[in-house]
Amino acid sequence: MPAPTDAELFDIGDLELQSGFTLRGAQLAYKTYGTLNADKSNVIVHPTWFGAWHDANEWSVGPGKACDPDKYFIVMPNQLNNGLSTSPSNTPPPFDGPHFPAVTFYDQVEAQHRLLTSKWGIESVELVLGSSMGAGQTYQWAVSYPEMVKRAAPIVGSSRTSEHNQVFLKSLRAALSLDPAFRGGHYSPDALPTQGLRAFARIYAGWGFSQAFYWGREYRSMGFSSLEDFLVGFWEGFWLDGRDPNNLLAMLWTWEHGDVGRTPGFDGDTEAALRSIRCPLIAMPARTDLYFPPEDEQWASQFIPNGEVRVIDTTWGHFGGLGLNVADNEFIEEALRELLDRPV
Amino acid sequence: MPAPTDAELFDIGDLELQSGFTLRGAQLAYKTYGTLNADKSNVIVHPTWFGAWHDANEWSVGPGKACDPDKYFIVMPNQLNNGLSTSPSNTPPPFDGPHFPAVTFYDQVEAQHRLLTSKWGIESVELVLGSSMGAGQTYQWAVSYPEMVKRAAPIVGSSRTSEHNQVFLKSLRAALSLDPAFRGGHYSPDALPTQGLRAFARIYAGWGFSQAFYWGREYRSMGFSSLEDFLVGFWEGFWLDGRDPNNLLAMLWTWEHGDVGRTPGFDGDTEAALRSIRCPLIAMPARTDLYFPPEDEQWASQFIPNGEVRVIDTTWGHFGGLGLNVADNEFIEEALRELLDRPV
Repeated sequence: MPAPTDAELFDIGDLELQSGFTLRGAQLAYKTYGTLNADKSNVIVHPTWFGAWHDANEWSVGPGKACDPDKYFIVMPNQLNNGLSTSPSNTPPPFDGPHFPAVTFYDQVEAQHRLLTSKWGIESVELVLGSSMGAGQTYQWAVSYPEMVKRAAPIVGSSRTSEHNQVFLKSLRAALSLDPAFRGGHYSPDALPTQGLRAFARIYAGWGFSQAFYWGREYRSMGFSSLEDFLVGFWEGFWLDGRDPNNLLAMLWTWEHGDVGRTPGFDGDTEAALRSIRCPLIAMPARTDLYFPPEDEQWASQFIPNGEVRVIDTTWGHFGGLGLNVADNEFIEEALRELLDRPV
Repeated sequence: MPAPTDAELFDIGDLELQSGFTLRGAQLAYKTYGTLNADKSNVIVHPTWFGAWHDANEWSVGPGKACDPDKYFIVMPNQLNNGLSTSPSNTPPPFDGPHFPAVTFYDQVEAQHRLLTSKWGIESVELVLGSSMGAGQTYQWAVSYPEMVKRAAPIVGSSRTSEHNQVFLKSLRAALSLDPAFRGGHYSPDALPTQGLRAFARIYAGWGFSQAFYWGREYRSMGFSSLEDFLVGFWEGFWLDGRDPNNLLAMLWTWEHGDVGRTPGFDGDTEAALRSIRCPLIAMPARTDLYFPPEDEQWASQFIPNGEVRVIDTTWGHFGGLGLNVADNEFIEEALRELLDRPV
């Protein structure tokens, strides 16, 4: 699945980042579903996960679903650095490739807020939801704009990236950077570090799905005939399919440094940031997620005044929250529906 | 901690491997503790884990411990490929380095059996125990020599390497092999693929200890002051400290292909091999082990006539079974003592 070509672009102007750099003429690629109603009261925001484009979120949208385009105006902003929005791969010198400045979850939400307010004049959002890094953006929305966000549903992701999760990310970076073709990020578009991406894929494969998933060879239900077929066909295929290494490392940086406590005004105090969330929030970690284990969300939930944790009981590990498994999607769907029906 | 220099060497002669190759003039490095009694009835065998030498097992030995050298004759054979026994790093051409033939757990135990029988005329073993790959060798001993092994205690390891575990191992190999200095295994001793070993270390770091271990920053109890200090000081330090990359990959191959069902006579039938074990066997997986989860041992135990599983309730993950954590050592010690006291 190469990058989708159906995104629209919006110029959010110059965006001053937490790193101190300014992204000049930054653009967000987005797609919308449904129609914004007259009083702009039917908005859902659904940001993207690591390495994904908006199309990876489309499983959640459809008539009769919680995210029903007949009822809601659903905005899927592609996160900065995913290759469709402003990213290392599409930025001219001097901020091209490995010279692209670091972007935080706070910055991502600032960009998305500008899209919503500048383009449509939106002042309130019925629901923010997102999986994995999308969950990181969801938490950030709830902290950055507590008056604006009415409900939040972070799925298989966290408000602060745990140290264990960081180790996983550091291992991905170490492997990808080892490929001599990577050249410190100064690779040629004609000579991508494909061996590095394949190693990256193999590391990811062990983390993405659970022990039980592999034990039961559940990859067969996805159309893969053996372990090696899955590792090459699914995992290497995914990362080799139009995903730019500098973009991946830029998103990795955002993820690794995820922490709502870094929101201006909280001075690194994650607990205080979580306490500031006003809306009802249902966190949905997956029981067998190896890098976003439910314990992280149970920890965060205790500080969120209207927080709740619902664990997805799945063997699909992290991927239980990414829309690939029908049973897990139904569980998520049920929670989203209940949350949207809740008067706030 | 560099390789210990207190091992003795025994020439086990030519060893025909399951791969069809013959290791000519193979040597096992070993260390013994205590004294073999007159009727040779006080033998304990304790093989080594991945990347480790016999000294990593010494935590289990001491007066008053289950493995008491005043009572038992404890033999710690270094597994082939660990750099002290015959290995890619110490074998002359044509079987040197990456040309070294593949060694299975069955082959490892054949070599160790020859040491015990040829050197000392030992015909029975009171206990075989081992952690991680040492557990793989323990299971193999119980299957290869059911008449000889009286008790077995595999710790944080399995009778058949699961597919998920294989994915972890494949990711290690992919990362190490990426380092241009690796040169397909034809690296110079003066130019080791240290960057590959560092990436290897970072991957391993995420797997070796549990999410909860990192969440609680338990590495501080090991003398490391921050996550990065732990990753470099402990993890990179461990793999850079005299561990030869070809040796590591050779051991990795043994581990990845671990399966007692490959013992001659069982034709790949792991369950039948497990059913053939005659001795009492206490498997001790760690509750939070990410690559040898307790479920694997619970699966195996159902086929072992006298099998039992005791889960080490630890946050130290796989390393809970490697002798580093006092509380976990005491749990293991208790089980070993009970097993050794059991009349058979």
